[in-house]
Amino acid sequence: MGFTPRNPDYEAVARQSYARQTFMLHLGAQLGEIAPGRAELHLKARQELTQQNGFLHGGVVAALADVAGGYAAFTLFEAGADILTVEIKINFLAPAAGEALIARGEVIKSGRTLSIVRSEVFAVNDGAETLCAAGLGSLMTRRP
Amino acid sequence: MGFTPRNPDYEAVARQSYARQTFMLHLGAQLGEIAPGRAELHLKARQELTQQNGFLHGGVVAALADVAGGYAAFTLFEAGADILTVEIKINFLAPAAGEALIARGEVIKSGRTLSIVRSEVFAVNDGAETLCAAGLGSLMTRRP
Amino acid sequence: MGFTPRNPDYEAVARQSYARQTFMLHLGAQLGEIAPGRAELHLKARQELTQQNGFLHGGVVAALADVAGGYAAFTLFEAGADILTVEIKINFLAPAAGEALIARGEVIKSGRTLSIVRSEVFAVNDGAETLCAAGLGSLMTRRP
Amino acid sequence: MGFTPRNPDYEAVARQSYARQTFMLHLGAQLGEIAPGRAELHLKARQELTQQNGFLHGGVVAALADVAGGYAAFTLFEAGADILTVEIKINFLAPAAGEALIARGEVIKSGRTLSIVRSEVFAVNDGAETLCAAGLGSLMTRRP
Repeated sequence: MGFTPRNPDYEAVARQSYARQTFMLHLGAQLGEIAPGRAELHLKARQELTQQNGFLHGGVVAALADVAGGYAAFTLFEAGADILTVEIKINFLAPAAGEALIARGEVIKSGRTLSIVRSEVFAVNDGAETLCAAGLGSLMTRRP
Repeated sequence: MGFTPRNPDYEAVARQSYARQTFMLHLGAQLGEIAPGRAELHLKARQELTQQNGFLHGGVVAALADVAGGYAAFTLFEAGADILTVEIKINFLAPAAGEALIARGEVIKSGRTLSIVRSEVFAVNDGAETLCAAGLGSLMTRRP
Repeated sequence: MGFTPRNPDYEAVARQSYARQTFMLHLGAQLGEIAPGRAELHLKARQELTQQNGFLHGGVVAALADVAGGYAAFTLFEAGADILTVEIKINFLAPAAGEALIARGEVIKSGRTLSIVRSEVFAVNDGAETLCAAGLGSLMTRRP
Repeated sequence: MGFTPRNPDYEAVARQSYARQTFMLHLGAQLGEIAPGRAELHLKARQELTQQNGFLHGGVVAALADVAGGYAAFTLFEAGADILTVEIKINFLAPAAGEALIARGEVIKSGRTLSIVRSEVFAVNDGAETLCAAGLGSLMTRRP
């Protein structure tokens, strides 16, 4: 799906917004490549982010899925608009076991008020990616 | 809905499991009251847990909704069984703005393999609670 | 949750709208009691509505959950506004086995643009209700 | 994703099961192409299947999304196993306006107990397809 950004400066705006996502920085998640309708996040595994069996916590996986989808949608927003997650559903497919996680969000519809996105989260082991979660969510455009 | 726990020792088992949820401790979330089919989590707001507008991050809210539902289900598990989140859907209703968050999970069905739970997350301001998220999810019982 | 309808004539408007839901009439579903923020649907079981094991089909259950939630939200709309389902998630808890189904929708948030609703679908046997599905969805207000 | 069917006779088994989906036949939905991990449904628009604005009803769209995903999962089941929808979430992206609908389901994980599927429903106008709904769901394998 080829999307045309409404704001040619979308990348700078997205990176400035991300820099204020204190919680994502606290998790150690970084905004990787972004393109119109797509965004990628990277996170190195750390002991603080685990659950009772030593895997990365579902809450971390869910946060990555949500935010990757959110920035994918945000790349298509007009200048000055803010974003709000309306809802997200996440299916956990495999334990998030690996050195790192990669989350990829992509827009499937960019409407005037609502954007619909898909997200996938992969666990990375020796460069090989295993799909560990799939998400489907909606985000809202808030104009000033 | 009155549930009878399969394991009379459910509270100790749940609290021991929670103590190994490194990520929840890292967030500063505490397991409050639990009862058969119910669990409550508490979290004090902290600057590290915020998003771009200074509210508590949706990822934090989602993690609380997931884990409150998970421990609600876990209270009804037989001894020795472990738990896995299959999926969760969360609707965000209001900004998570407050001094603290309370998440409440309750079981609506406790099956042999799958448990279905509802969660609600409230923002607390001067003791008043505002509903900021509602969740509906499934968890799986894993037997040794 | 006590809601005040924005349109005092909400019941007549909802019943007129429902009368144009050709598919619901085709299923044989009837709009039962409605109140501000609540709506109930009734459906008699029929052989045409079954799945491969003779239970009422998940698609019928899902349609009832969606529409009960939709009319619950619609009772709180201002005059002249139309409604659109944004998304719904449904967990199936038990086979829909019975003489009839009852679906109940209730609003948990009625916002300017989005309404969030919960639905429950019950199978009825000799007057006893068994919860067979739970839903959580969002609907959008469309102004003329 | 290339899947290997556990039952070489998967297509005949799926078509026999579908022939007992009385409700789908009642809607006029037909099982089109199936392949390991994929299934397609076709439905001609009819006045009985519409909602208040004359579009195909969301309940019809949801039923197609659910069943297309279900048969996609079912193609990978071992002989003798039955299927149950655990849950599905559907985002409605555009009015289902067209001469026909096509629903496509695909498996993203085929586990021992749970299968996770994605579905898409398209409205067809003069041969052109418009995406009108996206789903993400889980199904359970029931062994005899």
